[in-house]
Amino acid sequence: MLGLLIVLIQIISAEAQNFRQDSSTLKKMSNYILTNYECYNDLRYLCKQIGHRISGSAQAEKAVWWGKEVMEKTGCDRVYLQEVMVPHWVRGTEQAEIINAKGKRVPVSISSMGNAIGTSSNGVEATLLKINNIEQLQRMNAADVKGKIVFFNYRFEQTNVNTFDSYGPCVYYRWGAPSEAARMGAAAVVIRSVSSAYDDKPHTGSIAYNKKYPSIPAVAISNLAADELEKQMNKEPHVKMYIKTTCEMLPEVKSYNVVGEITGSELPGEIVVFGGHLDSWDIGEGAHDDGAGVVQSIEVLRTFAKLGIRPKRTIRAVLFMNEENGLRGGQKYCDLAAEKNEKHILAIETDAGGATPYGFSMTMTAAQRQKVKSWLPQLLPFGIYNLERNGGGADIGPLHRKFGTPVMELLPDSQRYFDMHHSANDVFENVHRRELCLGAVAMTAMVYLASMYGL
Amino acid sequence: MLGLLIVLIQIISAEAQNFRQDSSTLKKMSNYILTNYECYNDLRYLCKQIGHRISGSAQAEKAVWWGKEVMEKTGCDRVYLQEVMVPHWVRGTEQAEIINAKGKRVPVSISSMGNAIGTSSNGVEATLLKINNIEQLQRMNAADVKGKIVFFNYRFEQTNVNTFDSYGPCVYYRWGAPSEAARMGAAAVVIRSVSSAYDDKPHTGSIAYNKKYPSIPAVAISNLAADELEKQMNKEPHVKMYIKTTCEMLPEVKSYNVVGEITGSELPGEIVVFGGHLDSWDIGEGAHDDGAGVVQSIEVLRTFAKLGIRPKRTIRAVLFMNEENGLRGGQKYCDLAAEKNEKHILAIETDAGGATPYGFSMTMTAAQRQKVKSWLPQLLPFGIYNLERNGGGADIGPLHRKFGTPVMELLPDSQRYFDMHHSANDVFENVHRRELCLGAVAMTAMVYLASMYGL
Repeated sequence: MLGLLIVLIQIISAEAQNFRQDSSTLKKMSNYILTNYECYNDLRYLCKQIGHRISGSAQAEKAVWWGKEVMEKTGCDRVYLQEVMVPHWVRGTEQAEIINAKGKRVPVSISSMGNAIGTSSNGVEATLLKINNIEQLQRMNAADVKGKIVFFNYRFEQTNVNTFDSYGPCVYYRWGAPSEAARMGAAAVVIRSVSSAYDDKPHTGSIAYNKKYPSIPAVAISNLAADELEKQMNKEPHVKMYIKTTCEMLPEVKSYNVVGEITGSELPGEIVVFGGHLDSWDIGEGAHDDGAGVVQSIEVLRTFAKLGIRPKRTIRAVLFMNEENGLRGGQKYCDLAAEKNEKHILAIETDAGGATPYGFSMTMTAAQRQKVKSWLPQLLPFGIYNLERNGGGADIGPLHRKFGTPVMELLPDSQRYFDMHHSANDVFENVHRRELCLGAVAMTAMVYLASMYGL
Repeated sequence: MLGLLIVLIQIISAEAQNFRQDSSTLKKMSNYILTNYECYNDLRYLCKQIGHRISGSAQAEKAVWWGKEVMEKTGCDRVYLQEVMVPHWVRGTEQAEIINAKGKRVPVSISSMGNAIGTSSNGVEATLLKINNIEQLQRMNAADVKGKIVFFNYRFEQTNVNTFDSYGPCVYYRWGAPSEAARMGAAAVVIRSVSSAYDDKPHTGSIAYNKKYPSIPAVAISNLAADELEKQMNKEPHVKMYIKTTCEMLPEVKSYNVVGEITGSELPGEIVVFGGHLDSWDIGEGAHDDGAGVVQSIEVLRTFAKLGIRPKRTIRAVLFMNEENGLRGGQKYCDLAAEKNEKHILAIETDAGGATPYGFSMTMTAAQRQKVKSWLPQLLPFGIYNLERNGGGADIGPLHRKFGTPVMELLPDSQRYFDMHHSANDVFENVHRRELCLGAVAMTAMVYLASMYGL
């Protein structure tokens, strides 16, 4: 009985000892990141010297070699590339006008949906049909839609505290709804930008054509332009629009995921993988989406390496290629993991911007979630309190679906994200040094704990 | 026994019913604020049409009448002014140069400490003495300090996750340390700005002269200028500085707190008071400090009034005058409360900027704190999770000290605040619409719960 008590006391005091040690390690890591903020300087380079970098572009190629070099300089154990073929969509030129009943033409700024087709060389000119939501379209007769340019006037809901809750319903009008309009014979689609901002910047993003129906041109206008257009269409009937775009899909291009890792000291075969995506849209600088995730992931490796902290399990950062318009990098990573028979115990994505983090979303078993939650006391000092949301990330989705790998995504404050997302607003100046660093701290802490204690 | 059980079940189901009702009311309030964002438009007016508004200035006077008018338009029960005499410090002109050993003079941007005296009309020119922290100064011989310009080179600590933890130690070098230098015979003081930003903006803020020692001129330089100066002084000895400032304290001026309230339906004699301060520093626009708190406080009243929600206890918004350099408004409010024998059950300040809120700091009894924490499930949907920090606010401090009133302060994300605080960076453009509104939501929720359930 006394023996049992002694063993119990030993276990409890060993746990307390571990807790203090981890706590001190995490504080050291956080201090390193906040005082050196190399991830912030990396982001400046990526945004200002390379710039936006859509898959297949020369800048995406540059970003690969930059990513490899920066990773190598962290002092991690090894850096390598994973070859992957990616789509190569180019925007070309864009031009549009709103034409009132009297024939007066007023130019309006547009942004093609990514992967969309262009118009014919004459452009398309047709009467606008304002549709506030998909149900309204579905109630109409195809004859009333045929030949028109459908204006999806669906608004980003402002009442949600988490803006990602508004993004979900809204993004359908960019991603899926255009094919619904095509099914009913629409000539083209123009959407209200999927954005929380009331400004004059159109926001791009992928379209997914339903192959059963014709592919039609699809463009976005800014929220302010959409407000104007809505007002105009409420006053006068027969407003027309002219759209001319030359975007097109070119032949696929060879590209790469960039991978860096530190081998685990005790369980090298168990991998904690984490990353962001190296490609971005072709407007703005891809600063929040997802330059932030890229430099944070590199920062995790750097922090372990520079402080000489050896993880028990292998930790691996991946800069995925082609998240935005193909997910080829994420799929490739998963295929290679299957080929090599790798064992991933956790995958963490950071692709929700560089703002102050407050939590991680997770998709995993209840027992795994419970285990992660037991780490909360170590995360709270860094502002991480919320482990309640479900989620993961696009690039690690294939791992989860194929192997059931537990997945997570870093949750930064969401208030500003969709103001900038996929638009000319997504530039380095709109990322805050300390906020970006705190995201790197949160990632580092989670990677550290998972690499120490497994899942 | 069965009777007791029935009573218990009735109590529990009544509580669940209340919870649902409050929850729905709070969501309605939040939706109102996020979709109408009148506080954001109010802030634009305050910043752009009135601008900065130091106590005693014409703009501070304008802000009083503006505040009164905007409050009246909310539809609250009554609006009134509280007369208060305030100091009237004016900055005048500022000029400074760094002079190297060869006599080369390079201009440097400075900002006088608020309430500081100016230099003589010839300015002051003297050798600089770099002091990294107060202990270093205190170890010196007065003879080595005498006649010099002391350069307090104390850095804002970047490793703290909450920047307010860094502000505390750092602000001493603006507030108290200059008199320590004066005690040892310094001719003037220049400090590294109390700021997290690495930029070229000097930050102002109050100085408190210790009356036992001479008052000496005291100015701030930006963090980048301080970095330069530090490097220069490490390389060459005998760097000198020239400072000429004409700031001075003019005779006191009559001004006002602006007060608006809604009478409680059941306990009108129990008051929940909340507010921010109407005055600001005389550079920038006082957007975060404390335009945000002003418009959020007005928004609380507006939301109750416009939605027709009658609080059980009286709720009262106060736009305090002279927080920055005298606290006369906060003191006056307390004096009048004593005179009128008012009973305040809670005082809440919002004076930490307009960023996304995550909690409230509190100073109150353990039992009161426990009660507030029982409201957490109602606050979590709005991102409020942290009720752990101690705190209150400057303007409600007198109430707490005189009556023991429980006090709180809204805690917005602190990462950007000290980049802007008391500098030319504190402008409307640096406040985010949704973040500001969420602060108003958090204030409204806390005021609602306190007015329903007391403390």
